[in-house]
Amino acid sequence: MTESEFDIIRRYFTRHQSLRDDVIVGIGDDGAVLRVPEGEDLVVSTDTLIAGIHFPEDTAPAAIGHKALAVNLSDLAAMGATPAWITLSLSLPAADPVWLEAFASAFFALANRYRAQLVGGDTCRGPLSVTVQVHGLVPAGRALRRQGARPGDSIYVTGTPGDAALALALVQAGKRNAAGCAELFERLEFPLPRIEAGLALRDCASAVIDISDGLLADLGHVLASSGTGATLQADKLPRSAAFIRCLEMAGAAKERGYYALPLAGGDDYELCFTVAPEKSALAEERLAGLPGGCTAIGVVEAATGLRCLREDGSACPVARSGYQHFGGGPGNG
Amino acid sequence: MTESEFDIIRRYFTRHQSLRDDVIVGIGDDGAVLRVPEGEDLVVSTDTLIAGIHFPEDTAPAAIGHKALAVNLSDLAAMGATPAWITLSLSLPAADPVWLEAFASAFFALANRYRAQLVGGDTCRGPLSVTVQVHGLVPAGRALRRQGARPGDSIYVTGTPGDAALALALVQAGKRNAAGCAELFERLEFPLPRIEAGLALRDCASAVIDISDGLLADLGHVLASSGTGATLQADKLPRSAAFIRCLEMAGAAKERGYYALPLAGGDDYELCFTVAPEKSALAEERLAGLPGGCTAIGVVEAATGLRCLREDGSACPVARSGYQHFGGGPGNG
Repeated sequence: MTESEFDIIRRYFTRHQSLRDDVIVGIGDDGAVLRVPEGEDLVVSTDTLIAGIHFPEDTAPAAIGHKALAVNLSDLAAMGATPAWITLSLSLPAADPVWLEAFASAFFALANRYRAQLVGGDTCRGPLSVTVQVHGLVPAGRALRRQGARPGDSIYVTGTPGDAALALALVQAGKRNAAGCAELFERLEFPLPRIEAGLALRDCASAVIDISDGLLADLGHVLASSGTGATLQADKLPRSAAFIRCLEMAGAAKERGYYALPLAGGDDYELCFTVAPEKSALAEERLAGLPGGCTAIGVVEAATGLRCLREDGSACPVARSGYQHFGGGPGNG
Repeated sequence: MTESEFDIIRRYFTRHQSLRDDVIVGIGDDGAVLRVPEGEDLVVSTDTLIAGIHFPEDTAPAAIGHKALAVNLSDLAAMGATPAWITLSLSLPAADPVWLEAFASAFFALANRYRAQLVGGDTCRGPLSVTVQVHGLVPAGRALRRQGARPGDSIYVTGTPGDAALALALVQAGKRNAAGCAELFERLEFPLPRIEAGLALRDCASAVIDISDGLLADLGHVLASSGTGATLQADKLPRSAAFIRCLEMAGAAKERGYYALPLAGGDDYELCFTVAPEKSALAEERLAGLPGGCTAIGVVEAATGLRCLREDGSACPVARSGYQHFGGGPGNG
């Protein structure tokens, strides 16, 4: 890119944003200098979204800007951390002002919602790709983990998993503008990280994970980390009104989608968590008033493996699976 | 990528590495949990390297693994920070075991040299691209900055800038295997971040930057941040024996390259720094025994602008310029 292209890009990322006292040096030096308060641990997570892999090439830039940050904040939510600082590495085919304005507006709107400050990053010319890294804070030793689920714990989920996967199925069936389904696309493209729920679950949940790869796959990570198994009641899974309304339009067989999308569909960014029996009432009370609420969907058991039953006691016909996008590689996310 | 491909990749990134006491949760949860010691500030920097843009498509995987980390550690060096934690986001066209082994070996060799621990990241299938984020520690309030250069301060550089740019010129002239030039390629592909020099410059340098975009461009950033100007003595710039020996093979006119490569060539990852007169002896003494040493090359002046003179007092015929790769976008790096 030319010097002037970089100047254009820089303008879009030096706009008004929350300025935090704990940012000693922000954008503009070789590195950001940040001050972690005494008694707090630092939580770090990073995820990359690539055009054509994690989102369709023609996705609206606002959705990309929002979601690239949202999927990372969702990891902080799952750790019970308060968002603090963000870095952004952006690879762009060209410096298009319209694209940049929409991307940056959505990115900063979400960052400001949680008073998180962009403190650094870089931009270069290349295939469209967005890597965000988020830093959060949690009282020392109190980060929520995947391990820690114990037999007898209840399993909960926030929100209504399956909405995002149904929206994707509608897109793939050429029904992007299906009447009455707008909420589902909102959930796919502008997911809201469950930050408030994550904070409420500190000292309350025994294990937490965010649902990026699908409920069965991600709950499977919790159970594997904890050395336990579980039985899910597939009919207790909450489905949104829009989900019920739009399911038949997606082309897939209705009954299979009713189970498969909430259980195996990815990209919801809800939290799945376990709670010991003596803390269940507390967890339910704390989450009742928060966005997404929570619903009990099963029980942790000593026998390893994940069993999934329908109301009549028959096995739910959904193979464990999940998206691979965010599951792999060197680390967390 | 398939589940088994992710398993292959995971294996290469869960090898033996330095384990730090301050890593409470490492790879394998939704985020890493890290403990910053009381009285220390956190320094964060990130840079992306993309095949075909920041390095030729056929670059050896070991060089990519080394350099992706080295360019980030170089930013920590410029801030006077001690490396601590690393995250890695890797986009790969395929999970090739030979490629991964060479990449990971070089990456961890450099990380272990500075006891820095990989604590997270992600991998996905896509065009070859590597985003590294490094976290370093510095006593509170003592991070080195770009601003702070004062009129009368001496300007120094570590090592011998121009070596990497000459190596690149040789590659572009089809002389990758030119006899007697191996050191130059080593400097291009396996640059060593000047971490020790950065630490030695704490409480000593008035301003520091690392040279990624070229000496004139990067010194220009220091002067702009500091509201000052400078005069450089172009003949005082240290040139390596390999540089002198190989310059004529590069095809460019010898005399022009003699000035242009050290002044405007990028990718050296040396430090350029300024020191107040009363601390010059201390800085020179501290750096004398460290890798790269240091050489005085000019003086900071009140008049803005960057002047560059030859021994005979004539103006040096090199326009200010620099690589754009790392210079742009939302932030630091």
